[in-house]
Amino acid sequence: MTTWKMARRAERLNPSVIREILKLTERPGIVSLAGGLPSPDGFPVEALRAATDRVLTQAPREALQYAASEGFGPLREWAAAQLVAQGMAVTAGQVLITTGSQQGLDLVGKVLIDPGSGVAVESPTYLGALQAFAPYEPEFVPVAGDDEGPTPEALAAARGARFLYLLPNFQNPGGRCMGAARRDAIAEAALAQGLPVVEDNPYGELWYDAPPPQPVCARLPESSIYLGSLSKILAPGLRLGYVVAPPEIFPKLLQAKQAADLHTPGFNQRIAFEVLQDGLLEHHLPAVRARYQAQRDAMQSALERHLPQGCHWVRPTGGMFFWLELPGGIDATALLPRAVEAGMAYVPGAAFYAVAPRADTLRLSFVTVSPERIEAGVAILGQVLKEALQ
Amino acid sequence: MTTWKMARRAERLNPSVIREILKLTERPGIVSLAGGLPSPDGFPVEALRAATDRVLTQAPREALQYAASEGFGPLREWAAAQLVAQGMAVTAGQVLITTGSQQGLDLVGKVLIDPGSGVAVESPTYLGALQAFAPYEPEFVPVAGDDEGPTPEALAAARGARFLYLLPNFQNPGGRCMGAARRDAIAEAALAQGLPVVEDNPYGELWYDAPPPQPVCARLPESSIYLGSLSKILAPGLRLGYVVAPPEIFPKLLQAKQAADLHTPGFNQRIAFEVLQDGLLEHHLPAVRARYQAQRDAMQSALERHLPQGCHWVRPTGGMFFWLELPGGIDATALLPRAVEAGMAYVPGAAFYAVAPRADTLRLSFVTVSPERIEAGVAILGQVLKEALQ
Repeated sequence: MTTWKMARRAERLNPSVIREILKLTERPGIVSLAGGLPSPDGFPVEALRAATDRVLTQAPREALQYAASEGFGPLREWAAAQLVAQGMAVTAGQVLITTGSQQGLDLVGKVLIDPGSGVAVESPTYLGALQAFAPYEPEFVPVAGDDEGPTPEALAAARGARFLYLLPNFQNPGGRCMGAARRDAIAEAALAQGLPVVEDNPYGELWYDAPPPQPVCARLPESSIYLGSLSKILAPGLRLGYVVAPPEIFPKLLQAKQAADLHTPGFNQRIAFEVLQDGLLEHHLPAVRARYQAQRDAMQSALERHLPQGCHWVRPTGGMFFWLELPGGIDATALLPRAVEAGMAYVPGAAFYAVAPRADTLRLSFVTVSPERIEAGVAILGQVLKEALQ
Repeated sequence: MTTWKMARRAERLNPSVIREILKLTERPGIVSLAGGLPSPDGFPVEALRAATDRVLTQAPREALQYAASEGFGPLREWAAAQLVAQGMAVTAGQVLITTGSQQGLDLVGKVLIDPGSGVAVESPTYLGALQAFAPYEPEFVPVAGDDEGPTPEALAAARGARFLYLLPNFQNPGGRCMGAARRDAIAEAALAQGLPVVEDNPYGELWYDAPPPQPVCARLPESSIYLGSLSKILAPGLRLGYVVAPPEIFPKLLQAKQAADLHTPGFNQRIAFEVLQDGLLEHHLPAVRARYQAQRDAMQSALERHLPQGCHWVRPTGGMFFWLELPGGIDATALLPRAVEAGMAYVPGAAFYAVAPRADTLRLSFVTVSPERIEAGVAILGQVLKEALQ
């Protein structure tokens, strides 16, 4: 008899609650506002085709061979230049290309978290980050906040934590964006108590009203790690992200990267660089923003018209999500089957809390659904909520 | 002042000794037999171009979107069919597509290794596996062997280990191939003492004389994990590998995969599947084998003619490497600068040992060097060794 014995950390690995929910809700005819995927209408297919052709013509041997763990040099330069333009003092040598920004979260966890380490997180926060950190067995410390994100006073709870994980731009799931003054105050408080910040920014380029303020990291050059992603501006299926770290941390992240998958596909890095070099973002992103903005506006309008009194939300100024706080102690998880039966789906908010989940919350996505379907889905949601309140 | 505090496991992350050595040896004019990369002459560039075009025409939205953590269904089916043809009882549901087989090693470590767990390894063994497992803080247990790999008796040393890590086909660095009878005996011994086996097979398709025997895993359906790779048969720059695990282990590996990078690039998986579906391996691999075989033969012949008496090696029947055991207590690490000065480079063998490194060993690669350059490089090596023996 063979005896498999699993590592203790395997207990902290669990199936994604959301993926399970999505399986239930992807029935034909359902208006799903549950998804978290970008719209495939925005994928620059022809630009990627031309870029692939160029890469396979100009550098096939390099693109298809093993490559440096740090990433493709010109793509690292591109990422650094993007951040410098946003006010960060970053060199290409601090940029590590990762297999999606999810891998950046895993590497950060691997290098910084011991069993029992404190890891401070927003409440709610990105579920994928909780999943990446959890196997390293941290103790999650929730940091209280308001409609802009964590408050500086609340950082006292994070004293002694290995880092504070922040998603300041159009957070998933909260949709909220932290203002410039709040960023200053958070950076100051973190610095005062010696708390490193890990800033995750998958959605920053998806702004609809005005670009978001400078990254929190710009204020903390030595004591922050920044995570960027090409998934929302180019295409998730390429799995390209990056981590920016100070010289004190970079070498260990690089060694962890090497151990994890040697390097991110050079083929994909070179294709992405070709597309970016052609100025894709300048030509392509405005159209993506315009489409998402129209859908954001449709959802805001539908929520105003259909939701019962007492629901709380903040109109997101970017990103992909609305976050609802429900009145009357409604349990969004318990209510989901009724909503699906009535013809729409959402994601209950409880899964996004590291500790003390709030059952009376839910997330709605507007990016893959037409304004007409958004109207229909929100109307059903409003009806289901009104019935639940009676 | 900000205080970064690293995880204890970060101490076990270190720069690759071999990458550092390769930097020294990649000087112009040097005959480098140190490399570990496949020959880029073997990359099927045109087949990949055509496949990419088809993927971007037929399924651009799917290829560029987020995808299932398990991997692309048809590629999982393909991998399962390959293994069934080799006598393994495997279904596609047991196949997890990974970002290179290096990621498979990382996921295995994450799910199975606690700090202090025993992990039994060949001596020498694949350095990348040691690097992947090390951050999970195992205690490596070397298993003694001969020119065929570990001996069944030596498995007694591995009692209580979480698993035995084996590379039976043309091992990196040893070049050795385990015969069918030895595989039977190892499987029987592992089963008798309840020791799971993790079998890594990046080189199996690179056979020059006859296909290798059935995988060890075929004898251990419930108590083994198998790792496969497309890096040596297609191209490493796509970063595609796979893990096959029994139902008892598969879900945790899948959850670890999801936490690590959500999924392997769907773009790459679909391109690879298109190429494989076209019968690439049948048309393409024989030419790769023929080229490598000629170079293997050139190196064998050169070694016979140039090396001093007392060197021990086994002519590899596949893969990419010769492994030399040197006479007279020569320290291959200490000798390397002299070899480089004389015009050739190798990889000293010490780095490939988890414990008790043997300094009197070295690895030579024959796949990226022409027969003429192999002859020249081995002649220099012979001269350097003869001088060292005097």
